[in-house]
Amino acid sequence: MRTRAAVALAPGKPLQVMDVNLEDPREGEVLIEIKATGICHTDEFTLSGADPEGLFPAILGHEGAGVVVKCGPGVKSLKPGDHVIPLYTPECRECPSCLSQKTNLCTAIRATQGQGLMPDGTTRFSMLDGTPIFHYMGCSTFANHTVMPEIALAKVRDDAPFDKICYIGCGVTTGIGAVLNTAKVEIGAKAVVFGLGGIGLNVIQGLKMAGADMIIGVDINDDKKEWGEKFGMTHFVNPKSLPEGTSVVQAIVDMTKTPFDKIGGADYSFDCTGNVKVMRDALECTHRGWGQSIIIGVAPAGATIETRPFQLVTGRVWKGTAFGGARGRTDVPKIVDWYMDGKIEIDSMITHILPLDRINEGFDLMHEGKSIRSVVVF
Amino acid sequence: MRTRAAVALAPGKPLQVMDVNLEDPREGEVLIEIKATGICHTDEFTLSGADPEGLFPAILGHEGAGVVVKCGPGVKSLKPGDHVIPLYTPECRECPSCLSQKTNLCTAIRATQGQGLMPDGTTRFSMLDGTPIFHYMGCSTFANHTVMPEIALAKVRDDAPFDKICYIGCGVTTGIGAVLNTAKVEIGAKAVVFGLGGIGLNVIQGLKMAGADMIIGVDINDDKKEWGEKFGMTHFVNPKSLPEGTSVVQAIVDMTKTPFDKIGGADYSFDCTGNVKVMRDALECTHRGWGQSIIIGVAPAGATIETRPFQLVTGRVWKGTAFGGARGRTDVPKIVDWYMDGKIEIDSMITHILPLDRINEGFDLMHEGKSIRSVVVF
Repeated sequence: MRTRAAVALAPGKPLQVMDVNLEDPREGEVLIEIKATGICHTDEFTLSGADPEGLFPAILGHEGAGVVVKCGPGVKSLKPGDHVIPLYTPECRECPSCLSQKTNLCTAIRATQGQGLMPDGTTRFSMLDGTPIFHYMGCSTFANHTVMPEIALAKVRDDAPFDKICYIGCGVTTGIGAVLNTAKVEIGAKAVVFGLGGIGLNVIQGLKMAGADMIIGVDINDDKKEWGEKFGMTHFVNPKSLPEGTSVVQAIVDMTKTPFDKIGGADYSFDCTGNVKVMRDALECTHRGWGQSIIIGVAPAGATIETRPFQLVTGRVWKGTAFGGARGRTDVPKIVDWYMDGKIEIDSMITHILPLDRINEGFDLMHEGKSIRSVVVF
Repeated sequence: MRTRAAVALAPGKPLQVMDVNLEDPREGEVLIEIKATGICHTDEFTLSGADPEGLFPAILGHEGAGVVVKCGPGVKSLKPGDHVIPLYTPECRECPSCLSQKTNLCTAIRATQGQGLMPDGTTRFSMLDGTPIFHYMGCSTFANHTVMPEIALAKVRDDAPFDKICYIGCGVTTGIGAVLNTAKVEIGAKAVVFGLGGIGLNVIQGLKMAGADMIIGVDINDDKKEWGEKFGMTHFVNPKSLPEGTSVVQAIVDMTKTPFDKIGGADYSFDCTGNVKVMRDALECTHRGWGQSIIIGVAPAGATIETRPFQLVTGRVWKGTAFGGARGRTDVPKIVDWYMDGKIEIDSMITHILPLDRINEGFDLMHEGKSIRSVVVF
């Protein structure tokens, strides 16, 4: 069949919207009609050419929602008409990682997914001249139709709006999951969130759900204060506005001191910036003895994090999270329910809705810091 | 009173054994007769001058065992004749850290201890000419008598031999505790220990207690293989003997692969070297998704650890431990019981027994790599 897609032909160039060929789903695969897709920084990271593993031509996009059109042989858990959210982190429930019960990082199709291929080592997309087009993060949601493995699709309820729940395919789950699955924040905790973009705001609403007492947002853009407060932030720090000689680490340590606890420091911190210097601050502002810092942001290729080992020997823990530690097929449907039940907020974060033909405007809005999330609807 | 002590007069010089003045215990303090004390790398670190917080003149030593001689006013939990192990990490059971139930790093007397002083800001030791002598790590066990706060003394059973249980005051508890308290290793785990000295061997016996399946020891000295095996090590890697082009990380990943789990990596790793490059290897050889690496070794002043954040985002956890995460007054008496019950082994690790007058020989044996632990007996 043919479908309409925004194709990344080369790094650093705008996406080009065109008709492409899409083959039928093979064994264990499913054809999906994508109804909506968010535009995430990770798409931008790859499109810019900064991602050393980026492949071209490719159909980017990994934050979608849609409907099952056709199932390949052997598919058991889905049928045409089912509403689904594509998962860049699949959940096969059979590999050593899934069975470990210690991680969400399913390894069933990791090797081929990293090469822009379906599990059998081929692509389903091609240009009209027959040139293969690489898949992206196993999803390729910047297309009206895509083919995905059954294990990489979360079946969700039918009454949830596609243009909102597509965001659960990445940003919402990553932010909330980092709090609930990775950090396991407890009621009464003090937490800091560095970077109040599309992930940071979801970390904030995760912290509110978890019952944190103090939710400190850190951003160099004062406009983010209002955004943070909307989702539950209790305190705001702009590192650029601190008195001379006061580091952001010191500011946070001071804010978290109490008459009883004169040591200070956050119980949990979250980096949503991808900046390795910020990651160090995020670790070092946590509490001696038990502070945990969770890295969410994606750092530039080759960048390294650094600290004195004394920070860890005195009880701080350095962790990271991918897709918020969520097992997609198990957890994503629950998060959709939370949204439908009003437990979490998404609507106001979807700041722009665009048709596919204007997808490049969504990248412009991101560059200009004007959007929290732009969503393309088909 | 006067007592006999080995005094560190200046960095880089041998200790000098001499008579010193020792004042009576004040409020909440206890006079101890030290019966035996181990010589640890941390004493050497300070004596060498490498410790930027080192103070001189000082009475070093922090791994002792002895008997209560006299209690100052207000002391309730101890009486003359009680057998005790000095604790460089006290346990007041009243500070925010003790009450957090999340850390052993009691902060009740941290500030003064770091300054080589008793909690009231003075010293009990002085030279015969009246010059104050600093305390060390709140213990100063290289003296026949010392004064310590009640909260920094673990009361232990009377029938345990001083020249063995002194080692529980640091090395044994640090190694075993890192496994049981900090990593919480579970039955069947695969673990790696970097550095098979006085701490590493105790990590190994902790892993054996915890029921680990694979206990891989790593050391650049082949002589350590036999030592490791004595305590439960199942595999040995000498990084210098690996085929050219094979890193120690790759070697460990390969060793831990199974027909089912083709990813490989250790469930837990422990750095007992203090070398920041080894700390990175220790992290990176752990399993994607859930590997935990625990830093035990003390790094040189100013040295930093480094890795790509991707290592953490893909599920590895970087931690550290001090005194094995043990709450001294609560846990040390239990470890003494384990020794007396034959659950853990200490005797063979005490390779040399020396009188105080020959304490400098113990440092020489450490430099030459000839001892696991030298113990001074009074």
